[in-house]
Amino acid sequence: MDTIQAITTRKVHRTFAQKPVEAEKLAQIVDAGRHAMSARNMQPWQFIVVRERATLKALGELCSTGRFVADAPSAIVVLKDLSNTRWADIDCAQAVQNMATAAWALGLGTCWVGNFDQERISKLLGVPDGWVVFTVLPFGYPDPKTAAQVRPLKKRSEVVHYERYGNPRP
Amino acid sequence: MDTIQAITTRKVHRTFAQKPVEAEKLAQIVDAGRHAMSARNMQPWQFIVVRERATLKALGELCSTGRFVADAPSAIVVLKDLSNTRWADIDCAQAVQNMATAAWALGLGTCWVGNFDQERISKLLGVPDGWVVFTVLPFGYPDPKTAAQVRPLKKRSEVVHYERYGNPRP
Repeated sequence: MDTIQAITTRKVHRTFAQKPVEAEKLAQIVDAGRHAMSARNMQPWQFIVVRERATLKALGELCSTGRFVADAPSAIVVLKDLSNTRWADIDCAQAVQNMATAAWALGLGTCWVGNFDQERISKLLGVPDGWVVFTVLPFGYPDPKTAAQVRPLKKRSEVVHYERYGNPRP
Repeated sequence: MDTIQAITTRKVHRTFAQKPVEAEKLAQIVDAGRHAMSARNMQPWQFIVVRERATLKALGELCSTGRFVADAPSAIVVLKDLSNTRWADIDCAQAVQNMATAAWALGLGTCWVGNFDQERISKLLGVPDGWVVFTVLPFGYPDPKTAAQVRPLKKRSEVVHYERYGNPRP
């Protein structure tokens, strides 16, 4: 899919078709994360690809804003390097955006999970000291019976300025 | 350009060809930023598109890790909503990644500028209270005489795990 099209047509999906996600596509999504920008090229991230049903179910139970992970055909858990205090959040966020964009280009939807039980997920997945869970991203083919989340954007005139703040035109 | 190709071939560029960047391309790059994910769809960002030579020169002087902005044909200054304390850094970072990906697909390079004089840039651009400069991104066609920055990635085996941390294979 064309890049601009993927970025500007992507929708948020929380429910997915009962169809497995190919391992090759998950590998491409992880690669998109690996290619994100990071400060001083530190790459303060790790990725755990999950497809086992029991683990997905357990993850869903531990994500207070992501119960839907339990029913997703796959998920990628993004870990953040705790030793990188200044830039790790920003860098991991860029990896996540790349992953969502790549997934959409491959026909897959996802949704950020912001609130979860850090301690219990770390234990479930064997996350070592020095790393924390940054987010859990479910991936799947959109459920054809469920509409994508409506996500109205602020108008260009509300957020775009030229040369100085408040100039609405070039 | 294909999405996966854009994400995985993007390079960091700090020096640019002496060729103007089309206003239409800058509009597409801003749109890519507007379409980033954001927590609760708050969209805690604003974008100032800069093409005036004097402003670019002044910006470069105020970016301690981005002197090259002075010689870029264009830049987009990303502002962050200070009232959104939990997610604004993460959301703005996702906008930046989308902008860098879109730019690359359009033939343009960029480079994150992480350190700059917040107060003086805000004054230069008329940034209102409640907003701060998140980053300054120069955009231009890569300088054919300068190689892109080398940016070796960690190997997949260093950052990818399956089902649990430490499992190297699906």
